[in-house]
Amino acid sequence: MMKRTKIKDLLSSTEFGRQVVVKGWVKTFRNDRFIAINDGSTLNNIQAVVDFEHTGEALLKRLTTGAAVSVTGELVESLGKGQRVEVKVTELEILGDSDAEKFPLQPKKHSLEFLREIAHLRFRTNTFNAVFKIRHHLAFAVHQFFYSKGFVYMHTPVITGSDAEGAGEMFRVSTIDFDNIPRNEDGTVDYTADFFGKPTNLTVSGQLEGELAAMAFSDIYTFGPTFRAENSNTTRHLAEFWMIEPEMAFYDIRDNMDLAEELLKYVIKTALENCPDELEFLRNRLLEEEKSKPQNERSDLDLIAKLNFCLENEFERLTYTEAVEVLRNSKPNQKKQFKYPIEGWGADLQSEHERYLVEKHYKKPVILTDYPADIKSFYMRLNDPDAQGRRTVRAMDILFPGIGEIVGGSQREERYDHLVGRMDEIGIPRHEMDWYLDTRRFGSVPHSGFGLGFERLVLFVTGMTNIRDVIPFPRTPKNAEF
Amino acid sequence: MMKRTKIKDLLSSTEFGRQVVVKGWVKTFRNDRFIAINDGSTLNNIQAVVDFEHTGEALLKRLTTGAAVSVTGELVESLGKGQRVEVKVTELEILGDSDAEKFPLQPKKHSLEFLREIAHLRFRTNTFNAVFKIRHHLAFAVHQFFYSKGFVYMHTPVITGSDAEGAGEMFRVSTIDFDNIPRNEDGTVDYTADFFGKPTNLTVSGQLEGELAAMAFSDIYTFGPTFRAENSNTTRHLAEFWMIEPEMAFYDIRDNMDLAEELLKYVIKTALENCPDELEFLRNRLLEEEKSKPQNERSDLDLIAKLNFCLENEFERLTYTEAVEVLRNSKPNQKKQFKYPIEGWGADLQSEHERYLVEKHYKKPVILTDYPADIKSFYMRLNDPDAQGRRTVRAMDILFPGIGEIVGGSQREERYDHLVGRMDEIGIPRHEMDWYLDTRRFGSVPHSGFGLGFERLVLFVTGMTNIRDVIPFPRTPKNAEF
Repeated sequence: MMKRTKIKDLLSSTEFGRQVVVKGWVKTFRNDRFIAINDGSTLNNIQAVVDFEHTGEALLKRLTTGAAVSVTGELVESLGKGQRVEVKVTELEILGDSDAEKFPLQPKKHSLEFLREIAHLRFRTNTFNAVFKIRHHLAFAVHQFFYSKGFVYMHTPVITGSDAEGAGEMFRVSTIDFDNIPRNEDGTVDYTADFFGKPTNLTVSGQLEGELAAMAFSDIYTFGPTFRAENSNTTRHLAEFWMIEPEMAFYDIRDNMDLAEELLKYVIKTALENCPDELEFLRNRLLEEEKSKPQNERSDLDLIAKLNFCLENEFERLTYTEAVEVLRNSKPNQKKQFKYPIEGWGADLQSEHERYLVEKHYKKPVILTDYPADIKSFYMRLNDPDAQGRRTVRAMDILFPGIGEIVGGSQREERYDHLVGRMDEIGIPRHEMDWYLDTRRFGSVPHSGFGLGFERLVLFVTGMTNIRDVIPFPRTPKNAEF
Repeated sequence: MMKRTKIKDLLSSTEFGRQVVVKGWVKTFRNDRFIAINDGSTLNNIQAVVDFEHTGEALLKRLTTGAAVSVTGELVESLGKGQRVEVKVTELEILGDSDAEKFPLQPKKHSLEFLREIAHLRFRTNTFNAVFKIRHHLAFAVHQFFYSKGFVYMHTPVITGSDAEGAGEMFRVSTIDFDNIPRNEDGTVDYTADFFGKPTNLTVSGQLEGELAAMAFSDIYTFGPTFRAENSNTTRHLAEFWMIEPEMAFYDIRDNMDLAEELLKYVIKTALENCPDELEFLRNRLLEEEKSKPQNERSDLDLIAKLNFCLENEFERLTYTEAVEVLRNSKPNQKKQFKYPIEGWGADLQSEHERYLVEKHYKKPVILTDYPADIKSFYMRLNDPDAQGRRTVRAMDILFPGIGEIVGGSQREERYDHLVGRMDEIGIPRHEMDWYLDTRRFGSVPHSGFGLGFERLVLFVTGMTNIRDVIPFPRTPKNAEF
């Protein structure tokens, strides 16, 4: 039996006259002759030309969109437009039929909302073939980037007994039967009867565990699923999403920013190099979509130009304090167009402020640093108070056009006394974090790290606008299908 | 400020006379002069030589095991034994102290059990430095293997509303308050009030979702966490572990076996090539450990020889039916030494049987295929009944010496009627699996896949004997620390 060749390889082959086997799914069948076959190895189809005069009518009728076929034939130069090669069919087998009346994916444009409902089939569309191929290349690029720098890939736990990080609402993980809850004498739940003998949750971040490993390997990173049980039905939030969290001993906040910027540029460059067809397809898709919008709502740059722009420009770096000044003096603030007016130092920045900085003022990615301590996490390195006695921490958030925060990180508080001081302030019990505090007791060093939301990265690179369209099976409030 | 150089790079440098900065943790400090420093970039330490006559005594006293230091000095050729280079210190700074009275890791041998209790510090030992470095290289090798073959990396969901796969007990994921459980009128739990609006669990496998993607991309793989809520307190089971699950359209069971064998050999080869120091260390560790055992319990091959043996030999392939014959006629069966005697066809094989086949009879990895349908999953491809009318499925399990099952896979049942027939037999409601059945309704193709337990692979390659020692923070019954 001849071995099948993938369509990606055939389309770049010049071995005309060679006998080949193609297996894949029918995209279209025209004029009782031309089958467009796709096998997912590339966005592009190969054309198979059937000798319809010598092929049974019953067989031809089964060549419907979505049917699986195996085709044997000769690779020949194509005379048709838009393709260099095609296959002159000598043998045609239907591997699996697809009832044209029932198959939900017809060769026409379907809405993204509709495709989300049939997420198990949407991989077969051009749009999602492109999106998930790019996602794949981005994921590999992340591993390649860190591997080449000697960062150790750590699998931090998904189930955690710690809930001190406070990054968000958590999902409870349990084997306790709702109809038979073990109780202590005082009526509280007896968690010693639960699987882990105590309350456990799905992790919101691998950072704290990552820090433990960085105190041995110097440079580590995680790349795993994280969870938020927040009732956010937005285009930017998922209950389950993947996060990349590097953690580096001996890095200060500047080293941290340099690494994050280098990582983002590296993975975007990889996508541009490895996914030209996919990006071209998505670029045109977006242009098409924007045609229906008024001129002033269309993007200045198309998708590929936007990605190149990111590579060619240094991210703008400024402190929170500087950002507040820019915002306070901005037109939308003066004209009271912000929903949350910027009156002074100390307030958390809202999405509208971040967008103004990135999309209107600087028109490029922005790294904001040194936020007020009160609006940031306990583990961030305290700066010395400024001339006015204001307390800031060495946080750094990277804001991207159209996305908002794509990276959140900081230099970590390495001084034991300061760290427990902050924990006491916020009310985090020391004994629960004893293992974490050990890193500050034994050979503590200045160190830094950040979290990169992988889906937000994919959103940016693909130009998609709803985060549910860049993860295979999105989990959101009231939705855990498939 | 001079940039720090990692110890791995220094140890292979020949730029004698160069000024360097080393940062890391003190392993030992001898004769008021010689600091062995490690930064985790390599298993090996660099020696820093202090000019103790011109260094304050107070500073010297702080050079305790576990302390973090920054050392500036000249890279010189070493006259000492066991090292080529060392650093002649001109500046010494303590970054973080480590109280010798309190630091749990002293420069002596600690038991693995003790180190498991301080898993947050065990990364700093040679053994765990080696284990997790190898784990890291294996993980990257997995990605590299599939990437180079054009397999698309898919992130299948961790939280799932489906519990049909039946691979094991599941953890419930919920935001329902145990003290305030919403009830329907009939007294059952009202899951519409839960986060996802229905009962959800942690996934036991990404296979079913992987199959959906393979029907579009041809070849995909997952590499993510999976869960079992089973009360198994053994050296081979974890409640949370990482699994690699490739799924390939147009692959039959033979292609499936070929791929799995190629993958295992590729990643083992990578470890041998990239981790010579780590494997040498673990090899010696094992030899040392075996010294206390009687001769007949020691391994025939040392760790590195065992890995090479795996590369150089083809895995033995045989059917379940053949295996049962071998076992039935085996000495331990004749002498009634098996706890579960092999009487005939149909019984599930126990660990003792698998070990006999792999470790005694064939003395190499074994692939068992074509198991009785009744002891395997519903989605496996049914063979035609044999001459005696016995029903088998195209399952394939790979058994490794000392580990047992490391891979479990099968050709999948691609025929709609057979698949629903099996589901009906077992009692899996069709409507719950409608999305899965769609792959058999629309363009179904022969396809195959398997699951590789990542921790079992790490166990095999590192020669460790308890699975809790090859994952950073193990989750097991009554244990979810850190």
